[in-house]
Amino acid sequence: MFTVDTYIRVRYKETDKMGVVHHSNYYVYFEVGRTEFMREMGLSYKEMEDMGYMMPVIETHCYYKHPVGYDDEIIVTTKMGKFKGARVVLEYEIKKKDYNTLIVYGSTVHAITDSNLKPINIKKACPEIYKKFMGCL
Amino acid sequence: MFTVDTYIRVRYKETDKMGVVHHSNYYVYFEVGRTEFMREMGLSYKEMEDMGYMMPVIETHCYYKHPVGYDDEIIVTTKMGKFKGARVVLEYEIKKKDYNTLIVYGSTVHAITDSNLKPINIKKACPEIYKKFMGCL
Amino acid sequence: MFTVDTYIRVRYKETDKMGVVHHSNYYVYFEVGRTEFMREMGLSYKEMEDMGYMMPVIETHCYYKHPVGYDDEIIVTTKMGKFKGARVVLEYEIKKKDYNTLIVYGSTVHAITDSNLKPINIKKACPEIYKKFMGCL
Amino acid sequence: MFTVDTYIRVRYKETDKMGVVHHSNYYVYFEVGRTEFMREMGLSYKEMEDMGYMMPVIETHCYYKHPVGYDDEIIVTTKMGKFKGARVVLEYEIKKKDYNTLIVYGSTVHAITDSNLKPINIKKACPEIYKKFMGCL
Repeated sequence: MFTVDTYIRVRYKETDKMGVVHHSNYYVYFEVGRTEFMREMGLSYKEMEDMGYMMPVIETHCYYKHPVGYDDEIIVTTKMGKFKGARVVLEYEIKKKDYNTLIVYGSTVHAITDSNLKPINIKKACPEIYKKFMGCL
Repeated sequence: MFTVDTYIRVRYKETDKMGVVHHSNYYVYFEVGRTEFMREMGLSYKEMEDMGYMMPVIETHCYYKHPVGYDDEIIVTTKMGKFKGARVVLEYEIKKKDYNTLIVYGSTVHAITDSNLKPINIKKACPEIYKKFMGCL
Repeated sequence: MFTVDTYIRVRYKETDKMGVVHHSNYYVYFEVGRTEFMREMGLSYKEMEDMGYMMPVIETHCYYKHPVGYDDEIIVTTKMGKFKGARVVLEYEIKKKDYNTLIVYGSTVHAITDSNLKPINIKKACPEIYKKFMGCL
Repeated sequence: MFTVDTYIRVRYKETDKMGVVHHSNYYVYFEVGRTEFMREMGLSYKEMEDMGYMMPVIETHCYYKHPVGYDDEIIVTTKMGKFKGARVVLEYEIKKKDYNTLIVYGSTVHAITDSNLKPINIKKACPEIYKKFMGCL
């Protein structure tokens, strides 16, 4: 299965008064992982938006197992969970740099739309993108 | 059932290049709703942290139905989903100010810990807090 | 002089591991103050963008005198510093709710542009907006 | 002069509805630059905080020359502006990856404090840190 690892170092701004990364920021890490996943897949999300297609988020889920703090190095592992033309499910695992400690895991579900956020059938609208996505399963 | 409504106006900073609120920011709105829910419950989260207890997030879920943009006014409706001494589930609905358009709904699951993030049994550790939470069900 | 006060309660997300508000977030509070200042002035920034004009930031400055933390209530006082057709300078003071403790003060300098971020002369392009701004001095 | 270059790729979350990076986020990029500057200097900020010292921000300034957008690659060049025992001034320039287009430049002024945010004289309190900072001028 096609998976992509992305390395991130935790920023000070991403922590909160609990001393660790604020829970909402893991979704930003997922987004960074997704960006690199698509670049490796052969079509960057920026190119996709430039072509007039968007992937707005319609569901997000995250399970927090272990906190991380400022300056810690983490790895976001991204893979495609499901893809059926109208919806893309991406799955993520974040581990400490040692690859052993699981920090969080989760998923995001995306619609595929035109630039006005109207849902489209990507298989019809752009077979090239459809093929790229299918190739990740 | 005990529910608390919190009014928020969307900030420019909370939007992204899609022109609408970035999906991760709804978790910040949930957090604002949670803060006001606890204040109305009779024990603010700040007081709880000052007493030495924390509620780290262990799961988050959000379903996105409709986007909102800069300067829009929204209402976060917060209620307690479940509570069993060791875990608190809070549930949220965000609507447009008109109360009709559903924007997102979701939930957050929290552990109850001491200030070192070690899980505790709040019924034993602090019956006063336990009672407040039970009173929300 | 025309000044506008905006009330904000500090969010948990806005703190960092130092236990207080992260310095970059005061610029978000300034932005909230600016939004309310313009609404009170009689032309909201949203309306202005809808009319095809933008106010991108070209300078920001902030002086930090006293920290604030989670759940603290603050007041952003906004006024116009200078205005000469091509540039707008806004000035801000943030105090604790008691109006006595000065937290930060600062300023933001804005260009006035069309929706492609090209600088324009607002006096020529839209005398109505020009008049509103002049009225704040 | 001792300068440190840090590479960053702009995240989707860092853009706003203007389609470019929100002005407050450059201070986060400065912070990332500062973190890498100190690591290269031989004492990471994390180590410094672990030793009981902090560098709260007391002034920030930024001048915006050119916008950048999602997925753009930027370089933060960080150097020490001034250092006199009680205050540290750091200066930053952000350019596009090509090193030619200047995006923003700015500075941050820091106090040096103990872990309770009380100002200290670092020359007395910790000559080792003092020497590291002096070595950057």
